[in-house]
Amino acid sequence: MTELKFDEKGLIPVIVQDALTSEVLMMAYANREAYGKMLETKRTHFYSRSRQRLWMKGETSGHVQRVVELRVDCDQDAVWIKVEQHGEGACHTGRRSCFYRAAPLGQAGAVRLEFRDADKAFDPAKVYK
Amino acid sequence: MTELKFDEKGLIPVIVQDALTSEVLMMAYANREAYGKMLETKRTHFYSRSRQRLWMKGETSGHVQRVVELRVDCDQDAVWIKVEQHGEGACHTGRRSCFYRAAPLGQAGAVRLEFRDADKAFDPAKVYK
Repeated sequence: MTELKFDEKGLIPVIVQDALTSEVLMMAYANREAYGKMLETKRTHFYSRSRQRLWMKGETSGHVQRVVELRVDCDQDAVWIKVEQHGEGACHTGRRSCFYRAAPLGQAGAVRLEFRDADKAFDPAKVYK
Repeated sequence: MTELKFDEKGLIPVIVQDALTSEVLMMAYANREAYGKMLETKRTHFYSRSRQRLWMKGETSGHVQRVVELRVDCDQDAVWIKVEQHGEGACHTGRRSCFYRAAPLGQAGAVRLEFRDADKAFDPAKVYK
């Protein structure tokens, strides 16, 4: 038996990968309730730290995610899921992936960097009303 | 300009994806120093919360990871990197990926679950001495 290790806030990080393109779409946090709902309904559910409530991905945008595979790591403190992404994308900024900023490599270690932004897949103003 | 958001412990989660197979190999945390070294040397560096020190992936096993792409998410509080994994695998248990436990889906939301384990790629006793 494997017990998931939620952190001191009762959360566990969830890595969401696109089952079709293999890109990482987003990372969010689940509490026990969100994790349970995810397994049961196969729709991604998370706990919002800023809004302090459970939410289902796509509840506003309609861009829901169906979980097709769920894995837990060796330390039992991180979750990796593969999903079918419905709609144009996962990011509230209009990109398919939330990880749309690429950093240049091989530079001296600066934390503040110019990033290259990816193009938008949809107009967030029309989707998030 | 984009400023990375390190958490209250000075850490940011880093998702490590295999550039070859697209599987997620591991998730670990970087502090500013580890992030800087990662950009500069293109070798993955992290901060160990349990050992409270900077470490380079592969420093004991030789299974180093070369960073080929680095991205930051919309909230600037998570990093996704693609790596070339050297050696047989990333996990200290002998698997290629740390996410070797698959959970059955479609069940009522239980956190304690039987997981299916993946086969080992190498003998950890011979690699981690």
